Amino acid sequence: MKTAIYPGTFDPITHGHIDVIRRARVIFDRVIVTLANNPEKAPLFPLDERRELIRVAVKDIPGVEVEDFDGLSVRFAETRGAIAIIRGLRAVSDFEYEFQMALTNRKLSAGVITVFLMPHERFTYLNSNIVREVARLHGDVSPFVPPCVEEALKKMFPDGPP
Amino acid sequence: MKTAIYPGTFDPITHGHIDVIRRARVIFDRVIVTLANNPEKAPLFPLDERRELIRVAVKDIPGVEVEDFDGLSVRFAETRGAIAIIRGLRAVSDFEYEFQMALTNRKLSAGVITVFLMPHERFTYLNSNIVREVARLHGDVSPFVPPCVEEALKKMFPDGPP
Amino acid sequence: MKTAIYPGTFDPITHGHIDVIRRARVIFDRVIVTLANNPEKAPLFPLDERRELIRVAVKDIPGVEVEDFDGLSVRFAETRGAIAIIRGLRAVSDFEYEFQMALTNRKLSAGVITVFLMPHERFTYLNSNIVREVARLHGDVSPFVPPCVEEALKKMFPDGPP
Amino acid sequence: MKTAIYPGTFDPITHGHIDVIRRARVIFDRVIVTLANNPEKAPLFPLDERRELIRVAVKDIPGVEVEDFDGLSVRFAETRGAIAIIRGLRAVSDFEYEFQMALTNRKLSAGVITVFLMPHERFTYLNSNIVREVARLHGDVSPFVPPCVEEALKKMFPDGPP
Amino acid sequence: MKTAIYPGTFDPITHGHIDVIRRARVIFDRVIVTLANNPEKAPLFPLDERRELIRVAVKDIPGVEVEDFDGLSVRFAETRGAIAIIRGLRAVSDFEYEFQMALTNRKLSAGVITVFLMPHERFTYLNSNIVREVARLHGDVSPFVPPCVEEALKKMFPDGPP
Amino acid sequence: MKTAIYPGTFDPITHGHIDVIRRARVIFDRVIVTLANNPEKAPLFPLDERRELIRVAVKDIPGVEVEDFDGLSVRFAETRGAIAIIRGLRAVSDFEYEFQMALTNRKLSAGVITVFLMPHERFTYLNSNIVREVARLHGDVSPFVPPCVEEALKKMFPDGPP
Repeated sequence: MKTAIYPGTFDPITHGHIDVIRRARVIFDRVIVTLANNPEKAPLFPLDERRELIRVAVKDIPGVEVEDFDGLSVRFAETRGAIAIIRGLRAVSDFEYEFQMALTNRKLSAGVITVFLMPHERFTYLNSNIVREVARLHGDVSPFVPPCVEEALKKMFPDGPP
Repeated sequence: MKTAIYPGTFDPITHGHIDVIRRARVIFDRVIVTLANNPEKAPLFPLDERRELIRVAVKDIPGVEVEDFDGLSVRFAETRGAIAIIRGLRAVSDFEYEFQMALTNRKLSAGVITVFLMPHERFTYLNSNIVREVARLHGDVSPFVPPCVEEALKKMFPDGPP
Repeated sequence: MKTAIYPGTFDPITHGHIDVIRRARVIFDRVIVTLANNPEKAPLFPLDERRELIRVAVKDIPGVEVEDFDGLSVRFAETRGAIAIIRGLRAVSDFEYEFQMALTNRKLSAGVITVFLMPHERFTYLNSNIVREVARLHGDVSPFVPPCVEEALKKMFPDGPP
Repeated sequence: MKTAIYPGTFDPITHGHIDVIRRARVIFDRVIVTLANNPEKAPLFPLDERRELIRVAVKDIPGVEVEDFDGLSVRFAETRGAIAIIRGLRAVSDFEYEFQMALTNRKLSAGVITVFLMPHERFTYLNSNIVREVARLHGDVSPFVPPCVEEALKKMFPDGPP
Repeated sequence: MKTAIYPGTFDPITHGHIDVIRRARVIFDRVIVTLANNPEKAPLFPLDERRELIRVAVKDIPGVEVEDFDGLSVRFAETRGAIAIIRGLRAVSDFEYEFQMALTNRKLSAGVITVFLMPHERFTYLNSNIVREVARLHGDVSPFVPPCVEEALKKMFPDGPP
Repeated sequence: MKTAIYPGTFDPITHGHIDVIRRARVIFDRVIVTLANNPEKAPLFPLDERRELIRVAVKDIPGVEVEDFDGLSVRFAETRGAIAIIRGLRAVSDFEYEFQMALTNRKLSAGVITVFLMPHERFTYLNSNIVREVARLHGDVSPFVPPCVEEALKKMFPDGPP
């Protein structure tokens, strides 16, 4: 059985993330979505809510687990017997940062492979920052996130134009 | 009459912005400089001063208005009957971020077109961050900003070497 | 009346080009698609066929004309009274080349403005090279080009797998 | 059993390619190196020699096969029951072209996933063009290619400084 | 005697920085490592400790001095009679930012030349952010920094997995 | 005495090249402009004419020599006792290609350092391709090249609009 981890902050999970998870599951038998707390990034959603939103969003995809972890991704991969770290690669993305992390991770653990997957072209411009910004300004986020996240964002930014 | 909006934080307005506004006015009959408050960015100049500096800087260009707005750019464009959002595109710039915002805006309002214009080559390396940094270190900002902004920066960073 | 030119080799015209033309027409009253012969590029389709394919593809969009021209784009713009040169800007594109041409054109004629427009996100990865390559390998080009171009490509690459 | 294809021109195969193949084999049970003839690129080595060089270079890696194919990569993947197309991703590379091909391939066959892997950092600047150029100028190619390819290059460019 | 300055925050100094310093010394007779305090960046190490770590790290390279300075780099260069500002250029780097600063510096002082040097390929993905992040997560930083910095990082992040 | 070489095809030499040469001379005591024949690139000007145009263009800059060479740049540097290879770095340029060549050259000769210099911002968008294209289309090349090159281009493309 081949396992991969998919680390991130998921603040919140988007259709782009979910698309990457589906693709990863075609290749790997088990995918562990690894949720980083990242308090220093001052996330919009607390850790518990992010974890719950991921759970609801991926509950129909078999072979997907969700775990918290705050250390080095490669170390977590090793403890779970994972052979790969999944990273989404967007056309409009910080490609260079991803490359840098991948090279660093390899230096730290040569046995874990970084695998880059592309989300669907509909989501190549999408990230959690954009989703939070659109929600803050009361725009429609339904093209970007699953219904559970849309609900959570509406609760977070309840009223009309700011 | 064709109207475009030109949104930004303008902290402060530079020769690069002014050059883009002049070009936009050749294409559009009316250009509304849309000033975002962006308190979360902790701007150097308060909203009122940024607005006043824009007003002085563009007072000789007919057909240019200045308005505050903090919601989604595309929504503001719709309420003003604007058909386009102007964005400056610098050789040395966050092109990918611009692309991402343009795609997001289109998703939110298919009827508003994002139009990218280049400032003059003398300003392709210029942005407000650089201007603030040079002023903070008491360098000469006169090649980068109009006189009213130069004055305002001198008041903000009054004394000799920090 | 405001006129823009949209220069290119159009070998062949794609849905991406057509999307840019539609957007340009929202901003400009007249758009002249300017077809460069570019024999040094050894185009797949001869000039006459490229021109005919453009004509068929844009025949339902009013205010669009097609002309041949092989000199400097800015000179052609001046002779037609155009105030702008339209360039499509793809997320996955030679952005830097476009920037270079725009700066060169400005140096050659300060009065003509280069305007960058984005095609729909469905077409951000699309260019004529890709279309020719897919057609050569007998893939389905219908998501990328209008029916008249699909027909022309089938005639160009008639038989089964190479 | 999970199969991936790794398409390319391999003119000639380098240490960078071989590193990608080794990594791909950790993830996939079978990797088919798919050699494109690409006569229009005027390759330095004829198809037969490129195939033979790949065979020698990968003969110690179990589960690796070599096949010729000139059609669409996704079609070849389908005929071999492959679920993925492997692409090497170099820090110094035509990332955008890779992205474009991946999106096109997905449009042509949604069921085949493009997987990007990074070669070792020692090879991030390496490609076959560089190897051919260094060999043509009689530089030492041994850091870049396996011994069989070094021999073949010496035969191709036999004499001293040009 | 030709002098260059090498400005930065050095939070902390890495093997990449040291490699650039060695190369700079081949070209210039004297290299002044110019340490910016940058309190607004909230550096991990206080100014005194960063200065001391640089001193220890470069003590075997003759012709290298360390000085603090917080104003404009070009002004500092002028006061020291330096003809050049050294900048490291990584494959995986904010190249555009570097370019922007270089153009701004030239505008501020035409007589000081910005010289870009590449660190060794082993360090092209390395920067101080990555080092701090790996140390925070208790990964092994010895491939990235000299022993004195490794010690300092261990004191900063003393205990086991967070 | 410190020597650097500045290799290129110079087809033809532009103001951008000349600006880089002047800057290089501030740092190095001797700069050898190294002219590559590059027949495979089918240059516009024959080798003899390119060499002569360089000679005329740099005749007022002391300490500059011109030599032909077609082998590896690092080997030529070694034979001339040069410690560095100069490369121009434009904002709008093939930065990644330059990086790749620099890493390859270092692998081939660790003792020769690649030094990147920026031309003046007026020339950041300029290269020989653009100059040839503008001249072919009978545009004004005087902002881009010295008078001797302007004359040579007029002889090469003598008549009115093509």
